[in-house]
Amino acid sequence: MGKILVLYFSESGNTRKVAECVGEGAKEVDGAEVRLRSVSEATAEDVLWCDGIALGSPTHMGSIPWEMKQFWDVKMQPHWGKIDGKIGCAFATQGGWGGGAELNCQALMTVMMNYGFLVFGVTDYVAQQFTLHYGATIAGEPRSERELDSPKRLGRRLSEWVATYIDGKKEEHPLVNGRTRFPWPRD
Amino acid sequence: MGKILVLYFSESGNTRKVAECVGEGAKEVDGAEVRLRSVSEATAEDVLWCDGIALGSPTHMGSIPWEMKQFWDVKMQPHWGKIDGKIGCAFATQGGWGGGAELNCQALMTVMMNYGFLVFGVTDYVAQQFTLHYGATIAGEPRSERELDSPKRLGRRLSEWVATYIDGKKEEHPLVNGRTRFPWPRD
Amino acid sequence: MGKILVLYFSESGNTRKVAECVGEGAKEVDGAEVRLRSVSEATAEDVLWCDGIALGSPTHMGSIPWEMKQFWDVKMQPHWGKIDGKIGCAFATQGGWGGGAELNCQALMTVMMNYGFLVFGVTDYVAQQFTLHYGATIAGEPRSERELDSPKRLGRRLSEWVATYIDGKKEEHPLVNGRTRFPWPRD
Amino acid sequence: MGKILVLYFSESGNTRKVAECVGEGAKEVDGAEVRLRSVSEATAEDVLWCDGIALGSPTHMGSIPWEMKQFWDVKMQPHWGKIDGKIGCAFATQGGWGGGAELNCQALMTVMMNYGFLVFGVTDYVAQQFTLHYGATIAGEPRSERELDSPKRLGRRLSEWVATYIDGKKEEHPLVNGRTRFPWPRD
Repeated sequence: MGKILVLYFSESGNTRKVAECVGEGAKEVDGAEVRLRSVSEATAEDVLWCDGIALGSPTHMGSIPWEMKQFWDVKMQPHWGKIDGKIGCAFATQGGWGGGAELNCQALMTVMMNYGFLVFGVTDYVAQQFTLHYGATIAGEPRSERELDSPKRLGRRLSEWVATYIDGKKEEHPLVNGRTRFPWPRD
Repeated sequence: MGKILVLYFSESGNTRKVAECVGEGAKEVDGAEVRLRSVSEATAEDVLWCDGIALGSPTHMGSIPWEMKQFWDVKMQPHWGKIDGKIGCAFATQGGWGGGAELNCQALMTVMMNYGFLVFGVTDYVAQQFTLHYGATIAGEPRSERELDSPKRLGRRLSEWVATYIDGKKEEHPLVNGRTRFPWPRD
Repeated sequence: MGKILVLYFSESGNTRKVAECVGEGAKEVDGAEVRLRSVSEATAEDVLWCDGIALGSPTHMGSIPWEMKQFWDVKMQPHWGKIDGKIGCAFATQGGWGGGAELNCQALMTVMMNYGFLVFGVTDYVAQQFTLHYGATIAGEPRSERELDSPKRLGRRLSEWVATYIDGKKEEHPLVNGRTRFPWPRD
Repeated sequence: MGKILVLYFSESGNTRKVAECVGEGAKEVDGAEVRLRSVSEATAEDVLWCDGIALGSPTHMGSIPWEMKQFWDVKMQPHWGKIDGKIGCAFATQGGWGGGAELNCQALMTVMMNYGFLVFGVTDYVAQQFTLHYGATIAGEPRSERELDSPKRLGRRLSEWVATYIDGKKEEHPLVNGRTRFPWPRD
């Protein structure tokens, strides 16, 4: 059974809402067990427990907020080099489009790569002109259908990779599991 | 007089339209002289001529299209190390929001930094939830007012920095020139 | 059996030498089948064939050389969205330390993420003050033992992840397979 | 007179040593006034005071340590949008080569761009195979001549750009001031 951790930092509540969508999406794959944790409540044990992790935060000054970074610099530091091989992905909110959420996702994935995780983005489009190639990015509060679907898709893909690669359920591979990936017909 | 080069690659015409907005914005500063060039028509002389450059392209596979990269790898290579100190910024189109335009702008700015240019983003918001902190980013064709205003603001800021720093017109500094920077009142 | 592609671009021959080390390292895992291909000889079929890919190039102007980017923009484009889930990593040469090889590896991994691959770096140190956290990076020609060991470790790790996750050989996981990871004793 | 702030975080003392080199280099330009401050002693006033800033830190988990990020997220936040146009650059230490110092410099420059600063790297080589194209990067303690020269060059270039662009001393432009830029003859 895939163990999925959704670990987030949220100030205004926007990123928490996005995190909840990620958690919902993760549950779309049978057998996925999901923990939703804010960085203030999370412990190193939560990270040790999981097979897959979705890491998310608002974009502060173009990068990871210090509160989220502190978790990885301090709480997780004793485990560095001993937890390689988890599967990771990122999500981020931002004040406006063009506000750095992609760069923040990139920074979050760099932290996960530093810990030896395998990180990914999602090729799928959840709507016309709305994708999550390097993680789910949202401006402000997620409200529209596409803004809710994007983090759900991230969570679903995380569970799909964990099922496929950690649990050996090859039928869950996104190229063969039959779930919708694009809002247009594909050959 | 500030010499501004808007250098772009465009396949579908979307990035060309964004480039035209950048050029328009650049002309908002008195005395700015603007050249708009596609990479296929541009020569090294265009880059040598300019004081400030806005570099833009679609986002292909998360980064700079090879056609734009080839210009800097091949045509500009003989001038490397001899054109330091120009002022640069970036703009990018993408297939959808979350599609990598910020990462593409970052890559374009890395190329410019490699050439010794000083690069910048724009703190301004052109509308609620629409900014260009690391360059102007657009999904698909620019149509709405905010999508047209964002690259215009980039061009204006480029001309403002060139006027302030290259031409010594300190009254053009964006903190003192009195032009609108935010869609809300500021103290 | 893990199918590993080492795909590189090389001008001076330095990156080809690094690529050969990556290929050597990949073979350290039993059953790994390795293809070494330059971008000029590689075809889309080589990428389709592989389970894991190591992608490498010199650092030109801080990023991916146009010749390597062209391969992914043009030759691979028809396969976009249909080859998700491969495991990828990067290596890069540069003119000198501080010359952008890490940024180049990051850009190469961004391209692979765009294609839906899971990408990773390596926590291991191959010597005191020599690691490959975001891919193997070398300045100039690889000559010293640590410069040869770094790309070998990258290749070995790639084969280890492919064995563990694609072939289901959990005993090949780097945390349990008993191979050396650090040049100092670990608790 | 150019006002230069060297702002650093240091745990082991290595980054402090690099910061001192940056400060030394900054003084090579006549009239430069240099403040060296750790993040724990620095105040927002120090940043407001300066024309140019060199920002440096160790590389923790591939990115900016939380202590440095906190300074920009919290202490500087009230000044966001009001201090645009300063000239900035970055330096970073790391546990080993390939350990993320370039990515850390990139992240530090992203923070500065978020504040509206113009950021740069240095085209110069300070020795064969040793450069600072995206900021000065050092593994461990700076000891060798090239490791000391690289941050000095960064500081000197910062003062040169501040002199040229903020103080209007065009004779200090690195392309014309006659100071050595490369360890080999140039045409």
